[in-house]
Amino acid sequence: MADVMAVTRHTSIAPIDGGITAPTGFRSSALHCGIKAKAGALDLAVLAVDTFASMAGLFTTNLAQAAPVLVSKRHLDVTRGTGCAIVVNSGCANACTGEEGLANARRMTEEVASALGCEPEQVLVASTGVIGVALPIDRVVAGIQEACSSLAHGKGSEAAQAIMTTDPFPKEHAVRVTTPRGSFSIGAMAKGSGMIEPNMATMLGFIATDAQVAPAMLHRALAESARDTFNAITVDGECSTNDSLFAMASGNSGVAIDEELYPVLLDGLLSVSRPLALGIVRGGEGATKVIAVSVYDANTVDEARQVARTIANSPLVKTAVHGADPNWGRIVAAAGRAGVRFDMQRVTVRIGGILLFENGLPHDESAARAAEILKRDTVDIEISLGAGNASATIWGCDLSAEYVRINGEYRT
Amino acid sequence: MADVMAVTRHTSIAPIDGGITAPTGFRSSALHCGIKAKAGALDLAVLAVDTFASMAGLFTTNLAQAAPVLVSKRHLDVTRGTGCAIVVNSGCANACTGEEGLANARRMTEEVASALGCEPEQVLVASTGVIGVALPIDRVVAGIQEACSSLAHGKGSEAAQAIMTTDPFPKEHAVRVTTPRGSFSIGAMAKGSGMIEPNMATMLGFIATDAQVAPAMLHRALAESARDTFNAITVDGECSTNDSLFAMASGNSGVAIDEELYPVLLDGLLSVSRPLALGIVRGGEGATKVIAVSVYDANTVDEARQVARTIANSPLVKTAVHGADPNWGRIVAAAGRAGVRFDMQRVTVRIGGILLFENGLPHDESAARAAEILKRDTVDIEISLGAGNASATIWGCDLSAEYVRINGEYRT
Repeated sequence: MADVMAVTRHTSIAPIDGGITAPTGFRSSALHCGIKAKAGALDLAVLAVDTFASMAGLFTTNLAQAAPVLVSKRHLDVTRGTGCAIVVNSGCANACTGEEGLANARRMTEEVASALGCEPEQVLVASTGVIGVALPIDRVVAGIQEACSSLAHGKGSEAAQAIMTTDPFPKEHAVRVTTPRGSFSIGAMAKGSGMIEPNMATMLGFIATDAQVAPAMLHRALAESARDTFNAITVDGECSTNDSLFAMASGNSGVAIDEELYPVLLDGLLSVSRPLALGIVRGGEGATKVIAVSVYDANTVDEARQVARTIANSPLVKTAVHGADPNWGRIVAAAGRAGVRFDMQRVTVRIGGILLFENGLPHDESAARAAEILKRDTVDIEISLGAGNASATIWGCDLSAEYVRINGEYRT
Repeated sequence: MADVMAVTRHTSIAPIDGGITAPTGFRSSALHCGIKAKAGALDLAVLAVDTFASMAGLFTTNLAQAAPVLVSKRHLDVTRGTGCAIVVNSGCANACTGEEGLANARRMTEEVASALGCEPEQVLVASTGVIGVALPIDRVVAGIQEACSSLAHGKGSEAAQAIMTTDPFPKEHAVRVTTPRGSFSIGAMAKGSGMIEPNMATMLGFIATDAQVAPAMLHRALAESARDTFNAITVDGECSTNDSLFAMASGNSGVAIDEELYPVLLDGLLSVSRPLALGIVRGGEGATKVIAVSVYDANTVDEARQVARTIANSPLVKTAVHGADPNWGRIVAAAGRAGVRFDMQRVTVRIGGILLFENGLPHDESAARAAEILKRDTVDIEISLGAGNASATIWGCDLSAEYVRINGEYRT
């Protein structure tokens, strides 16, 4: 433990350019293969490792799992977490597409494997877009062949664009982690805009590092970092058929992650994941504000999360924040229906640090100040349950008429 | 059992005029006492029994319970379900108002009791409106005194108006139940528009009958009828601090309800409750369509309800219906995240009777016909889980930009 503290004390994490291909040992390529109707709109990306990498994945908990999710899970099982590439398309989720969909997802991995000279099981696949529509597989295959022939370092930003659907902006981030035992990089990109809920909703995330990490440890670090980042966000409480979060470790930096350096790897993963997760919320469908709901003094972390999640998903809280209304009553009512036991008399509610509810009573004399704070583009809601010592934060967004417009007119 | 069937076979239920005061033995009065800012807007009602009635109540499951809920629960406990009146106000929920709020709720019952010559514990109280604001108790007391001096038969419609908040229309209904052993009436009124979710959200409901029913049986019938009516609706998944559903039985008809007539009483309660519950959904904030989500072939009724509720509360399903988009993919995705285990390959999804999803695959050739059906003001969504024999229906509504407008500008 003393060693771990010494290591983390002498570690620094600094942002760098380059996104998903910032770490050494990774190349990418992105292009328009014709899934999206709009000419030139990037809709296909391949991420490739120069040699072989440790791979890890986390997937949607929805019972309805898209073909690429089923194929990627199986491939990770077969290879026990090693691989050479990930192929991803946007514009079509390849979900609810039956046997043909499974065959198409497998075909995507086969084409990449054939082009790169590895086994199909060493390729993972992800898709995002409309559910229930078949992939135009011939165009996708042609696109994969072209993409695999133009893989290059330094093209991460194009890949980050190629995975977007209704996202208003691309989301990528990278950091350089310097430790007493050498330095390594972590790069990442993500997409997601609607159907976002803890446990990974319609979200795709990709993280690459040139640290040397065994597959089991990579999976552990990915799950631990996702808990407080990609799994702590919500746009609309929806959880999709395609959510996937991948990590790849090339080992090219020569820095081997053992138990001593594990906290450093975790810090690095959190550093790239947090801005991407917040970016997903910030770019949530129709969102105009990020709402950080923090629940303190709960009996357990799970209970704190449950209360925070119920508040963050409450349509009345979300519309109140949208209208800059410091309506602590809706926050209290949402907390009270979260299915967690606590004493409402001991609860305090703060918006932007301003106390609005205490001892079962409002502090409406502070409402005007809180209303001013609610006009900002990030709003902190803090609730103390007065029960225990556990806490949790969930990031959500407001609910606007624009969300209704986007989702009422999406397919029609 | 043979007797019960003979009785129900010779029973008829027919709609009648008169709302909550249609049954004999009840009088009501409604007026503007000054809680609502708008001059003349009815905001106070008293419902009184000529002698004494059996009383029953069901209340919100929210941890945050408003003062009138706490007072009414206590009064029902003290009297073991007998009473002489209910007083109700709109415009102020008297919730999160501390000791003063409790004192005000008690004061309302005391004023009614004093005017009618009964004990305060024989009076129940309900409030609806803004949370966290104190009642203008002097105006309320003056209003109660005036209301109690002008109680009359045949004024149920005014009471139904006096309990409204954002409701676009009043909701009342009455029926005459004719049995081989005589006839009795049931009248009812309800309010509720936003914050509506199974387990009674911001909903107030009042049912009066001149049947003679023991308090315990009245409570049982109320709970059983609410399960498939007031507790089977949702507008926005919110559950409020004030939800209350009351039943009163005067006995004036002389028809005594025993186990043999219990099914008849239940049918009568369902007959008045169903249109009111649907009226709440139809008048849901911003709602343009009622969505009836029926889940069939589940393992248990609870699982069927859980899946139906998740679909009915899904923002993506609600916005799709609003946009008349037959987006079965969002229905499947919502079902898949409901926390119930089933085999997605055996699921079928129908909109307005039109099969859109089966064997894991879409029937998009029927999408245009389903889109036409989605333009109607009532939409049936049916899902078979292919697992067991249990089923359940939840009634919800679409999500419109108007909901956002109403709730983003409610207090400001």
